[in-house]
Amino acid sequence: MKRLSILGSTGSVGRQTLGVVRALPDRFRVVGLAGGQNLDLLAEQIDEFKPDFVYHQGKGKPVHQSGVEYELLSLDDIASQVEVDTVVMATSGKAGLSPTLAAVRAGKNVALANKEALVMAGEIITREAKLNRARILPVDSEHSAIWQCLNGEITAPAGLILTASGGPFRDYSPAQLEKVTPEQALKHPSWQMGKKITIDSASLMNKGLEVIEAGWLFDMPFDKIRVLIHPQSIIHSMVEFIDGSIIAQLSYPDMRLPIQYALSYPERLPNEQLRKLDWGETGSLTFQEPDFGTFPCLKLAIEAGKQGGTCPAVLCASDEVAVELFLSGRIRFSDIAGLVEQTLAQHKAVTDPSLDEILEADSWGREKAGQLGEGKKP
Amino acid sequence: MKRLSILGSTGSVGRQTLGVVRALPDRFRVVGLAGGQNLDLLAEQIDEFKPDFVYHQGKGKPVHQSGVEYELLSLDDIASQVEVDTVVMATSGKAGLSPTLAAVRAGKNVALANKEALVMAGEIITREAKLNRARILPVDSEHSAIWQCLNGEITAPAGLILTASGGPFRDYSPAQLEKVTPEQALKHPSWQMGKKITIDSASLMNKGLEVIEAGWLFDMPFDKIRVLIHPQSIIHSMVEFIDGSIIAQLSYPDMRLPIQYALSYPERLPNEQLRKLDWGETGSLTFQEPDFGTFPCLKLAIEAGKQGGTCPAVLCASDEVAVELFLSGRIRFSDIAGLVEQTLAQHKAVTDPSLDEILEADSWGREKAGQLGEGKKP
Repeated sequence: MKRLSILGSTGSVGRQTLGVVRALPDRFRVVGLAGGQNLDLLAEQIDEFKPDFVYHQGKGKPVHQSGVEYELLSLDDIASQVEVDTVVMATSGKAGLSPTLAAVRAGKNVALANKEALVMAGEIITREAKLNRARILPVDSEHSAIWQCLNGEITAPAGLILTASGGPFRDYSPAQLEKVTPEQALKHPSWQMGKKITIDSASLMNKGLEVIEAGWLFDMPFDKIRVLIHPQSIIHSMVEFIDGSIIAQLSYPDMRLPIQYALSYPERLPNEQLRKLDWGETGSLTFQEPDFGTFPCLKLAIEAGKQGGTCPAVLCASDEVAVELFLSGRIRFSDIAGLVEQTLAQHKAVTDPSLDEILEADSWGREKAGQLGEGKKP
Repeated sequence: MKRLSILGSTGSVGRQTLGVVRALPDRFRVVGLAGGQNLDLLAEQIDEFKPDFVYHQGKGKPVHQSGVEYELLSLDDIASQVEVDTVVMATSGKAGLSPTLAAVRAGKNVALANKEALVMAGEIITREAKLNRARILPVDSEHSAIWQCLNGEITAPAGLILTASGGPFRDYSPAQLEKVTPEQALKHPSWQMGKKITIDSASLMNKGLEVIEAGWLFDMPFDKIRVLIHPQSIIHSMVEFIDGSIIAQLSYPDMRLPIQYALSYPERLPNEQLRKLDWGETGSLTFQEPDFGTFPCLKLAIEAGKQGGTCPAVLCASDEVAVELFLSGRIRFSDIAGLVEQTLAQHKAVTDPSLDEILEADSWGREKAGQLGEGKKP
């Protein structure tokens, strides 16, 4: 019986994590829940899962029916309580940074769905994890695939291949991209996700962030990580070995599988809710190289990862601002990359930064991108 | 430095094994070589690799240049010498049976390319391997793929998926199959192999034998092993897990990769001769269910595997006779399955057979299939 703290329990990954717990009640117990402002849903989750610790962004205790006793704690405390075996880090944005660090410092298994933690502070988090014998267990489908493919291998891989659906605009020309609307960009062909990550998927920024994340998770130089467009989203990623062999992980796109694997590792558990691949309906699996010219965000992210220091934090910050400006109709889809690029160009990077310096770079990046965005016309 | 005995060194797999040794001279030393009747090639191999022990089917020592000193030994002795770490069993047909048994009884690592050993005597060989802590390391590309996909997994798989190119007659109708010539059947779309195995690939008998082999190698019930036609021969096989995840192994079709992996396991070694997959030229990967009606040999083999006892030995024996009759123009391609089926129907199976009973069943099967084949007209 593993005891879990779930941070971001009312979000998409958090709810799916609770779905896995519900399907496997003999294996997992929820001891901590942290939600944001959706207090109604959090109250329902408290009723159902009866945690010992709770965090939320409202005032007082959420209203719930069952009279469960629990303590209100900070995010960092919920991530590091001695009773917790595995922390599921499903908060989005930079809010995940501090509790991720708290969890690895407490030597926890951290099932990491939050992208920003490793993108912004990969060096600090992986160093602290090593020092404290914490394990970072990937939850993103791509990183989970790579992790599964590396299972049992004692020789370092030659390279990683991150697959990408290519998003809704996979075969668009730059001219077509200029005209896309937020509604079009929010329709992802394979995955149901939040708005920010869906836009990042359409611009391939998300894939670039995943390259940075993979570099830290698997201790792999960025030039040994390549991105391959695979529109069917059946192969979730692959590992190339030095003998020319490639190992790949396949399944229907369903976040519950990587979530469950991170929780059950090193075991695998049966779950009737996870649909087996039907080869009769699978059809062709196809692959193409990404078009870096048409999707400059991918290149920008990989370059920021290579530069390191505070650059990835500024990348994340400026992208978040740019996506908001696009969603509110104030810049075009094709302006996102330009805004990120201009912000990065003006950034004076700090190497080997502290957590505070990373957070300062984040603030600076938001402000600068906001200013630069003001000047644009949709 | 691993010390190898290579049985069948002048055949296709044997020569490719020596190619791997040639590419990685610091890792492997050849201490034993066993060839058949190609004494010229064997003499060259003795000159180059300077083994301590040799077997061949001629008289006296093969003529060679370098005056290397070596002992002439029996096949069984070369497979079980104390100096040997890994035995590469690359002989074809039932000749591989006795030395495979000798090697596992001596507790060796056995890199097994010989199909008949496990198909005919899987129960005896896997039992003796367990008793003597010998490891059977698959060399067939499909079984090597499954082995690589199982690496590090602690939970038993839900099933195995053996891929098959489908051979040159993949989309033929039964009527078309009646008319195919030996020349057409000998043109395999993906692999360069010996005549017998190429015909078996065209009839899918080879895939059926691989199902039996996989059952023994991975201790998997036959109804959890499925065959999937994959014409591009890039995915060499897959493993399905109980959580719905599938792990697959990919590469160009090149026997040197599974041979090298069996020799280097658990490590992987770099080998510049093994070409890395080029995604730009790979195109679509497609899959279809096998047509059991048009290719009855696949079903016959799986059924013989399920029945067990001496049935798989009779399957192998009658198939060998049938393939010879087809190659010499005395029966049609579509008669192969009928001849095997009739022979099996007349066989009185022995359950839990001894090695002698298996060899008796083999002789009986050859004679019976020969008699039944006499009556056919091409």
